[in-house]
Amino acid sequence: MSQPAVPPSAEFPAQARAAVRQLRASRIREVANAGIGRPDVLPFWFGESDQVTPAFIREAGSRALEAGATFYTHNLGITALRGALAEYVSALHGPTSVAQVAVTSSGDSGLMLAAQLVAGAGDRIVAVTPLWPNLVEIPKILGAAVHTVSLDYGADGWTLDLERLLAALTPDTRALLINSPNNPTGWTMPRAVQQAVLAHCRRHGIWIIADEVYERLYYGDEPGVGGAAPSFLDIARRDERVICINSFSKAWLMTGWRLGWMVLPEAMEGDLGKLIEYNTSCAPAFVQEAGVVAVREGEAFTRDLVGRLRAARDHLVGALSALPGVDAHAPDGAMYVFFRLAGTRDSLDLCKRLVREAGLGLAPGSAFGDEGEGFVRWCYACGTERLDEGVRRLRDYLAR
Amino acid sequence: MSQPAVPPSAEFPAQARAAVRQLRASRIREVANAGIGRPDVLPFWFGESDQVTPAFIREAGSRALEAGATFYTHNLGITALRGALAEYVSALHGPTSVAQVAVTSSGDSGLMLAAQLVAGAGDRIVAVTPLWPNLVEIPKILGAAVHTVSLDYGADGWTLDLERLLAALTPDTRALLINSPNNPTGWTMPRAVQQAVLAHCRRHGIWIIADEVYERLYYGDEPGVGGAAPSFLDIARRDERVICINSFSKAWLMTGWRLGWMVLPEAMEGDLGKLIEYNTSCAPAFVQEAGVVAVREGEAFTRDLVGRLRAARDHLVGALSALPGVDAHAPDGAMYVFFRLAGTRDSLDLCKRLVREAGLGLAPGSAFGDEGEGFVRWCYACGTERLDEGVRRLRDYLAR
Repeated sequence: MSQPAVPPSAEFPAQARAAVRQLRASRIREVANAGIGRPDVLPFWFGESDQVTPAFIREAGSRALEAGATFYTHNLGITALRGALAEYVSALHGPTSVAQVAVTSSGDSGLMLAAQLVAGAGDRIVAVTPLWPNLVEIPKILGAAVHTVSLDYGADGWTLDLERLLAALTPDTRALLINSPNNPTGWTMPRAVQQAVLAHCRRHGIWIIADEVYERLYYGDEPGVGGAAPSFLDIARRDERVICINSFSKAWLMTGWRLGWMVLPEAMEGDLGKLIEYNTSCAPAFVQEAGVVAVREGEAFTRDLVGRLRAARDHLVGALSALPGVDAHAPDGAMYVFFRLAGTRDSLDLCKRLVREAGLGLAPGSAFGDEGEGFVRWCYACGTERLDEGVRRLRDYLAR
Repeated sequence: MSQPAVPPSAEFPAQARAAVRQLRASRIREVANAGIGRPDVLPFWFGESDQVTPAFIREAGSRALEAGATFYTHNLGITALRGALAEYVSALHGPTSVAQVAVTSSGDSGLMLAAQLVAGAGDRIVAVTPLWPNLVEIPKILGAAVHTVSLDYGADGWTLDLERLLAALTPDTRALLINSPNNPTGWTMPRAVQQAVLAHCRRHGIWIIADEVYERLYYGDEPGVGGAAPSFLDIARRDERVICINSFSKAWLMTGWRLGWMVLPEAMEGDLGKLIEYNTSCAPAFVQEAGVVAVREGEAFTRDLVGRLRAARDHLVGALSALPGVDAHAPDGAMYVFFRLAGTRDSLDLCKRLVREAGLGLAPGSAFGDEGEGFVRWCYACGTERLDEGVRRLRDYLAR
């Protein structure tokens, strides 16, 4: 190897372009990094269960590997999985054809693909916050400008000022990004609000990109057509400007598999296929095979999971509410309690101290936007004993 | 489900933005689609072996699934895989640290990430063609302008006019895209040319994005440091504007796993981590575990594979050269014979006819750029009996 004696000119530093350097780094990971090498830390910071993927799905993956499912697949996914998903989506949200469903290499990838489909440099994008960072940052990679509309926090928890959102959805807006049920707040857009937003977006040709990965994790009293959270798929036509993103991560505990899907107008199938080719080509073949088994045989598991999550939610909200200074509401959806802690002005600093001084891993509210400051996110996708030990650590810390 | 009676306004069709509609669709897939439902077609069109991934790698994937490797991993990859890759790259190309290596969800994803790192709207990108379409199309998704410099075809096969390339690399060029060994031509950039290109790019601060996924599939007589094809990693510093992309697909027959890696300046690690978070989050956990076994235990397999591919290359070039009108050169690298067929003015039409009338699946040269017109690509990653049957079908077709 010949290394030139003269280093490269300082004129040309090896660094990413400015738009990428300015992307927000994950403050959750910043907190988690503070816990590296600390096996005693109880982590509730990430959005995943402490349980491994169910055995029947892992075994399906192994069977597919053994059978040799190690070749490229169609960009849009294997026929068996697209078919299973079309049936699944149809049962939850009304008739949906195979041509309206595409398999993606994670829900994240689906969000990136949706953004690439509709958003370019200079486009105006509107997002409702607090919100997990990816939805807000992805369009910036494409040069789009993201305008945020904040939920309001009050006695009823987080609520949306519909008029403020509609005012932000100016006619020159390219797309609205909605994550409902919402990470981190659990806020779920009610049906009547969905109807108003859809009508407004139709009028102005504004795309709706709906991140609905938590749709099955819904505990509210106004479910959609098939018992899941209200979805834009319940009320939208399949040939209009609505793209819904979903994932295997939450309903089947498959976070580490990186498998998701999109529902979108059939007219976009060809263009989406090109984008998938140019992003990841396809999801791994045997991962898709396991996905077929998850969708076809996983319904009982998912229903049981939702029951357990509901119990965990109620348990955690009850325990937290007994602590001084904690203001916690039971969320309608997802798997987080996003609670306010009196006197907290720097949630990032607080969460780092909780890791170091109390062995408790939580996510800082500021990771989800400025309006999340003063809050902390706690993922309750685990057993009650683990939750109790976490609450005990928080109580002891607050008592100091 | 309430479907509104009035369809959405024709003013706002549900279609992708213009830049995406204008992306080139794969002409290889167009040919392959002509063979759907035709089990008698012998396919040589895709860039993958007809052999399944070796059992020891598939078994590693299954073991990881059984052990419960189903959770999110670090954005940049699991420590074991980054460490294995750092050692592997160091052995082939000189000292490379873990911080200079990142795991990606396929080589494709690595190329998209590299483009996102350095290229935005309006940036000038230069690519050497003929070239598999992804490299040329990816920057367009980000709004960059891609300028191509064609190799020349003559008595010695495909060669590069270095002066023409350097003239195209104007000081305002943001990045050069080089795929060497090249898909489809097998052209491999000689060391002296790499040195000249690197010196020029250093002078003007032009990024080199090197797609080196075929580096192990090299049959030429001027190998790089570790026996692979000459690589920019052999001659570049690790802190300058060079990003190398690689993949598990070719050297370990893992196309359907979607696993790759990047080597890049350590100073970009943090920004790359953000982009991976916003593209796919991470590669599947158990896929990465299998990757560790491939890198650590796959050397004998890869060396044997390269020997078999070299034999297949020589066999196919010999057989094709015996056909009338065929002009075929033995490529220095990759796994394709990209041969000229006299009188062919529309290779796409020819390849469709070969599927329908001869049961032979080849890739049209025009899929790789206008300068590929008149050529056909044949992937020889299979046994000689299969190659012989393919050549027989081509001979019979030409004889009609």
